[in-house]
Amino acid sequence: MATGKKEMGTLVPVFGIRMSAISAGVRYQNRLDLVLFELSEKTRTAGVFTRNAFCAAPVVLARKNLTASGGDVRYLLVNTGNANAGTGEQGMTDAVRCCQALADAAGVDMTHVLPFSTGVIGERLPAEKIVAAVPAALQALQDDQWLLAANGIMTTDTRPKGVSAIVTHNGQYITITGITKGAGMIKPNMATMLAFVSTDAEIEQDLLQDLLMSSVEQSFNRITVDGDTSTNDCCVLSATGKSGIKIDKADDGLFDAFSRALHELVLDLAKLIIRDAEGAKKFVTVDVRGGANTGECLLVAYAIAESPLVKTALSASDPNWGRILAAVGRAGLPELEVSRIDLYLDDVCIVKQGGLAPDYREAMGQAVMDQEDICLRVELARGDANEQVWTADLSEEYVRINASYRS
Amino acid sequence: MATGKKEMGTLVPVFGIRMSAISAGVRYQNRLDLVLFELSEKTRTAGVFTRNAFCAAPVVLARKNLTASGGDVRYLLVNTGNANAGTGEQGMTDAVRCCQALADAAGVDMTHVLPFSTGVIGERLPAEKIVAAVPAALQALQDDQWLLAANGIMTTDTRPKGVSAIVTHNGQYITITGITKGAGMIKPNMATMLAFVSTDAEIEQDLLQDLLMSSVEQSFNRITVDGDTSTNDCCVLSATGKSGIKIDKADDGLFDAFSRALHELVLDLAKLIIRDAEGAKKFVTVDVRGGANTGECLLVAYAIAESPLVKTALSASDPNWGRILAAVGRAGLPELEVSRIDLYLDDVCIVKQGGLAPDYREAMGQAVMDQEDICLRVELARGDANEQVWTADLSEEYVRINASYRS
Repeated sequence: MATGKKEMGTLVPVFGIRMSAISAGVRYQNRLDLVLFELSEKTRTAGVFTRNAFCAAPVVLARKNLTASGGDVRYLLVNTGNANAGTGEQGMTDAVRCCQALADAAGVDMTHVLPFSTGVIGERLPAEKIVAAVPAALQALQDDQWLLAANGIMTTDTRPKGVSAIVTHNGQYITITGITKGAGMIKPNMATMLAFVSTDAEIEQDLLQDLLMSSVEQSFNRITVDGDTSTNDCCVLSATGKSGIKIDKADDGLFDAFSRALHELVLDLAKLIIRDAEGAKKFVTVDVRGGANTGECLLVAYAIAESPLVKTALSASDPNWGRILAAVGRAGLPELEVSRIDLYLDDVCIVKQGGLAPDYREAMGQAVMDQEDICLRVELARGDANEQVWTADLSEEYVRINASYRS
Repeated sequence: MATGKKEMGTLVPVFGIRMSAISAGVRYQNRLDLVLFELSEKTRTAGVFTRNAFCAAPVVLARKNLTASGGDVRYLLVNTGNANAGTGEQGMTDAVRCCQALADAAGVDMTHVLPFSTGVIGERLPAEKIVAAVPAALQALQDDQWLLAANGIMTTDTRPKGVSAIVTHNGQYITITGITKGAGMIKPNMATMLAFVSTDAEIEQDLLQDLLMSSVEQSFNRITVDGDTSTNDCCVLSATGKSGIKIDKADDGLFDAFSRALHELVLDLAKLIIRDAEGAKKFVTVDVRGGANTGECLLVAYAIAESPLVKTALSASDPNWGRILAAVGRAGLPELEVSRIDLYLDDVCIVKQGGLAPDYREAMGQAVMDQEDICLRVELARGDANEQVWTADLSEEYVRINASYRS
């Protein structure tokens, strides 16, 4: 199951980026499982990585190489089928071996290569298969292969995911293209979410990292299927500078246009993951308004978005407002005055000042819940902070997929 | 589904407590839905109530009357079928009305009555039906009706739940008997867990409250199905004093024996709820050892016990240790050294020092996972604190029950 459109818009090539996707036989034969990005010289790359303490060897190495190279990254090497997580020192040896083989073949220092792995946890990475496939991956590099790459990084995703945006500036334009994978944030076993975003804008390293972090904070860090953070999550942003247009804070208008476009694009990628969440029949926006601060808005939003009872009700299209209120009530807000709380399903007011809204009729809530896209809005009346998170429903299919995955 | 034995041990009458269970037609006809406890004069009662900010009217009133009467409670009035939650001021009026009717009929002040409701949220309590049934409930009071009462407080529970314990002292004995309801902590809609524990020991009010709070902290506050705290959870402990044996800290030996027996009994009640959790096929102990303090043990334990990925793997009897490690890794412990962590399924070491244990074979883990009762043990090697929590698996049946409940 998945929600929304199956079709993806055109993925626009980014000057200075070439890529390939081939089959290296990591776990299955004849399946795209090795994706290589080549970034032109002078490209700057920023990265955000999982906060899971049990992060995988490639995450540790990617973070290390990104620091060592000061963002001067030339290759992103991605494999599916094996997450190289929970593999101890052997895992690091294997990750280094793959990166070194690529660095040698390409004639760069190993610190200019970032590795990414996604797939089963706890099995040794078949590094020899990846090493053997490196020459073919280099050979196949082309500059218009984003869709192929989006397919190549998929695991149990039901569809490739990517978005492009164009920012115009004085008759010229900047391209931003990103792809992602992950069928929810719900599969540490298929270690979950990766995203690769590129632009031909020129952006200095510190600003690039700031832009990426603020975009991720408002997008990938605002989606949840069940709160299970993977061991392998990574999102990188590369700026080639090939458009000849420089983004800096000196040009307010351009900076704002670019950062807004980037933010929207990364958010669109994050939402595509929720639309492809395992077993998902609903795309749910949880919108918490009127909190005293961001933190308490997020407490309430996640209490709702991660409540199995709310999510099973969503799965059944049941406007079960009691479960939503119960989640708000246990979110842990200090001195919560329940008599000030309003609850809306889309624009239908279902709870007014803590009790059932006088005008509410079950059919009104049912009409909203029957939709595929649903917004649950909570008005706390405690302040001016607003936050949104996005989630999916919890279906029997979710349990089936996750209970049967290894069997 | 449910785990463990269907049969309950004998529930031993407690001197000074009479009870009845009748059908008042609150939601269904011909179903026990009104349980009345009569506590003899001089009985002391302590209570612990849900921390959910959206707590139900009867919870507010019970807490208020318990305070007003200083623990001098004479009647506990319990209805199923309707939680009287999310019902605003009307809900409080209805709760007061039921208590007042009972107080008038019994000739006591209303503050000596504690009300308890469990059932559907957001519908008005049919107070007139309860008021009409009060004379019959008083008429039916007997001193050996614990099993009937345990049946009377059930909602979607598949079995009545109760435990008795006897504490001997100088040739005399103290009885403790408790009953509980709740099929998981997972049903704010059938607002969830109630427990009534009584003893014929004599215990002063402050000590009684301390004993109850410490017992609940280590039992009902250590079980989880999905982290959804109900709006109606209550646990009360009544001490009639009829045994003539006084519990106080002056007599160390007796105090220890009694508090240990009480603690074990309340923990047994809590475990019975997990055994009857919706859709449960597994009874799971999560045992976190070697933490720096209680708080971080609980963070890790709940990260595991509430992880949908761990719970779906349990449902499939899959020794999927990667999901358990991923949950440990995201629990948020500062400076967690993953290379020191060991993981056991029962006595099978599956992860040693952060990686797959060299001697581990899948068949060993599979043999443990095929059992109904499973212990997941994490050794953090950070200190001396140990904590256990108890949970059940997440099955397709859980989703089916909770998705279809209102439809």
